[in-house]
Amino acid sequence: MSKDRLVIFDTTLRDGEQSPGASMTRDEKVRIAKMLEKIGVDVIEAGFAIASVGDFEAVRAVAEAVSESTICSLSRAGVQDIDRAAEALKPAANSRIHTFIATSPIHMQYKLRMEPDAVVERAIMAVKHARNLVADVEFSCEDASRSEFDFLCRIIEQVINAGARTINLPDTVGYGEPGEYGELIGRLLNTIPNADKAIFSVHCHNDLGLAVANSLSAVMHGARQVECTINGLGERAGNAALEEIVMAVRTRHDLFPVDVGIDTSHIVPTSRLVSSITGFPVQPNKAIVGANAFAHESGIHQDGVLKHRETYEIMRAQDVGWHNNKLVLGKHSGRAAFKARLEELGIEIGDDNAMQLAFTRFKELADKKHEIFDEDLQALMNDMQPADRPRPFQYLGLEAVSRTGHHPRADVRLEINGAEQLASAVGDGPVDAAFKAIESAVESGATLQLYSVNAITTGTDSQGEVQVRLERNGQIVNGNGADTDIIVASVKAYLDALNLLADDEARAHPQREGV
Amino acid sequence: MSKDRLVIFDTTLRDGEQSPGASMTRDEKVRIAKMLEKIGVDVIEAGFAIASVGDFEAVRAVAEAVSESTICSLSRAGVQDIDRAAEALKPAANSRIHTFIATSPIHMQYKLRMEPDAVVERAIMAVKHARNLVADVEFSCEDASRSEFDFLCRIIEQVINAGARTINLPDTVGYGEPGEYGELIGRLLNTIPNADKAIFSVHCHNDLGLAVANSLSAVMHGARQVECTINGLGERAGNAALEEIVMAVRTRHDLFPVDVGIDTSHIVPTSRLVSSITGFPVQPNKAIVGANAFAHESGIHQDGVLKHRETYEIMRAQDVGWHNNKLVLGKHSGRAAFKARLEELGIEIGDDNAMQLAFTRFKELADKKHEIFDEDLQALMNDMQPADRPRPFQYLGLEAVSRTGHHPRADVRLEINGAEQLASAVGDGPVDAAFKAIESAVESGATLQLYSVNAITTGTDSQGEVQVRLERNGQIVNGNGADTDIIVASVKAYLDALNLLADDEARAHPQREGV
Repeated sequence: MSKDRLVIFDTTLRDGEQSPGASMTRDEKVRIAKMLEKIGVDVIEAGFAIASVGDFEAVRAVAEAVSESTICSLSRAGVQDIDRAAEALKPAANSRIHTFIATSPIHMQYKLRMEPDAVVERAIMAVKHARNLVADVEFSCEDASRSEFDFLCRIIEQVINAGARTINLPDTVGYGEPGEYGELIGRLLNTIPNADKAIFSVHCHNDLGLAVANSLSAVMHGARQVECTINGLGERAGNAALEEIVMAVRTRHDLFPVDVGIDTSHIVPTSRLVSSITGFPVQPNKAIVGANAFAHESGIHQDGVLKHRETYEIMRAQDVGWHNNKLVLGKHSGRAAFKARLEELGIEIGDDNAMQLAFTRFKELADKKHEIFDEDLQALMNDMQPADRPRPFQYLGLEAVSRTGHHPRADVRLEINGAEQLASAVGDGPVDAAFKAIESAVESGATLQLYSVNAITTGTDSQGEVQVRLERNGQIVNGNGADTDIIVASVKAYLDALNLLADDEARAHPQREGV
Repeated sequence: MSKDRLVIFDTTLRDGEQSPGASMTRDEKVRIAKMLEKIGVDVIEAGFAIASVGDFEAVRAVAEAVSESTICSLSRAGVQDIDRAAEALKPAANSRIHTFIATSPIHMQYKLRMEPDAVVERAIMAVKHARNLVADVEFSCEDASRSEFDFLCRIIEQVINAGARTINLPDTVGYGEPGEYGELIGRLLNTIPNADKAIFSVHCHNDLGLAVANSLSAVMHGARQVECTINGLGERAGNAALEEIVMAVRTRHDLFPVDVGIDTSHIVPTSRLVSSITGFPVQPNKAIVGANAFAHESGIHQDGVLKHRETYEIMRAQDVGWHNNKLVLGKHSGRAAFKARLEELGIEIGDDNAMQLAFTRFKELADKKHEIFDEDLQALMNDMQPADRPRPFQYLGLEAVSRTGHHPRADVRLEINGAEQLASAVGDGPVDAAFKAIESAVESGATLQLYSVNAITTGTDSQGEVQVRLERNGQIVNGNGADTDIIVASVKAYLDALNLLADDEARAHPQREGV
């Protein structure tokens, strides 16, 4: 018996990017989108075209780069928003406009300051206008889980008549409980007379830890699209995690009346790519993609697994792409092997110059570190700043000394807008000294909100990947830097963050709204 | 109308500790147990007394230190296990023995190699034996979610007759789906004739991201105890997160027929304490306790929150203890203020000598860093190695130099079994050089599995907290070190890990089993 297809709608690049500090450049979005296409995501929400020039260009670049998945842009229920979305989506092989308006009493009264009748009219107008521009239109009732049932029925019936093909019912504030939320979806499907003319979709937030369960309960009650993100990234506590939705449906195929078109064997590399680009770590006890998700500590569990795998394992680690990151390259690897591996990882190098530069960096790294893993390549590419970003601040060199009984000291050689400068400072530690040295020259006025280092692979010769989060006037950026020397990596990350702060247009609060 | 009490059973110290690399010393367990008592946890599972001498002593120490919560030890369904548990629990004001045996066909056949009849007999014997030693006995049907319904009814009826007061139905492999799992609990309660003589409990694993939802669904169907952990720590992808269970029940009091006795205002500090002791980070998009859980990035959300808080917030950050970590101490703070703050944090200092040492360390830190936050105090106390642990390796001092164009170099002064030694090495970075220097003197044979650094608070003068995970012959330890100098913090963490490796008894795979 063939099952219904569950449409996987990934919003890592839109709602995921709304996590404070998770904003991405155009090129980073394209890299993630290519991975999402590779694993078989049905719809990729690439951004919110009208929010900023940077967001518009990111949607357009993803639309150009991806051909298999449908590319979607969010837009409010207004003509300008929708036109801008359609324009950004022009290059897409398959495009969707996703328009929304709030339908809960609290949102209509306090945020929109609109009467319910006016909200219905606006929604109909928006859907009709979008349908004149693209064939595939999705409509979302923002804060659906706190909306009145009769009002939902009324507005949904009308927007389906106006041409919406997908009706999304977001649990915008993460307030839903699985039984109640699934029942809401089921009742809407049973009540709305033209419900069979659209796919019903859910978009759940994880404020109470229930995003995945709410989504799956809705699927049990007839929803056929789930909006989700890699690693559960997203506003506040995030969205439903794509990897958990997909593996629950697959593992419990005895219960769920749907199947998904996802190639799960690249889930872990995709998770790492998103984590590495956003600088958001995945906790070890995260389901599916956490470092311990398939680890068995207690003796009896190990014993059980050895005796019969299924005593303690319901999934196989290799099914989601663990252990696919074995040693790939070393100092004797040639350019062809290097390029092939980058392609495997969904990393595209623009032209020959960029390729030459990347290969040179790879060789430099291979001299310091004899085993080069996929994670090293990801970090290397993250570290090579994309050409589409201005970068007034560049690293040239440093000397840092820590000595018990003395204040640590750092001398940093920088290029600032093309001019070389030497900056020195003492600090509480060599990293602090280096940051103070940079600030003595740059005077950015930014405050350091977060500093973290992770070894990219195991072993003492591993590269350190440093993430620096700076804040200035409400603008938050994450800079990344990787090097086998932690002080050098820290300085690179700090300068990366300063460059991002300088690049206002592309990064500053790219979103203005969300569902 | 008064609601049923939902018993909160915390197993951070038992199942949580089964996360590879999350093992804790006796003193660390006591500190966490004191915090759990402070927030009002009903039952604290402190360990698995027969697993090791270290585990036995940890259960005993927790039983001595805590008087409000019931203290529990896990034990297999055997006389020796149960006797050992009872002995460890002797000092407790309220004690519980938690005994278990597997009830699923796959576990009985492949792991236990026992016939179902023999399993029932063993369970009855175990419960009767335990009831001779303590009044409060819990029985778990390991792998309940994959057990046969009729067999569950049979064994549960018999163990209730034998004196079990709590019946726990673990979803040991994280296979359950909320609808199905809740229904199982409901059917058992409706079918077993003496079900009203016991409290039914659930213990869910998060392999598919459904641990919290499965637990809550069971509560909807009549379960009145939930086993959970802080931060969702636990075997593989972990257990149901205590903070999510508690806040879901509180926030959706309109739906849940129960209430909990937890003081939620210390949830965030408790989360941080567990994260800091285990070295397991909490991801920013973790519900309730993640750094972004209450952050609003997108413009319209901020606008909505300003207009009317409830447009986007269903909980208040201060209700779970965010923003309770404001500046508390500085260099002019006296001993009384310091001591009072430690007590607030649940940290107890043994004797006057220890207090003097702690205060000296505090003053040293306050000289380097003018604002001392709760997190700094936690790190300081983590860093002060407890007296119950041997520590053959001690840090005395170092000099580390990074210079562009040269190999980074480190000279580390150590004390090894009381003898001072100077070790030097070059490396790929100053941390690598320092670790190589230490290894040139120690030759531990351990491999570095994980290295991470987090700034404890914001600002460049923040302390770096370094976590080093070493592995030797299957034994995994996490060492922690904090300092404003990242290289010093790294060396301290590395030596801490070496000291833990040397302390075999207390740390090596403390658990042998789990539910």
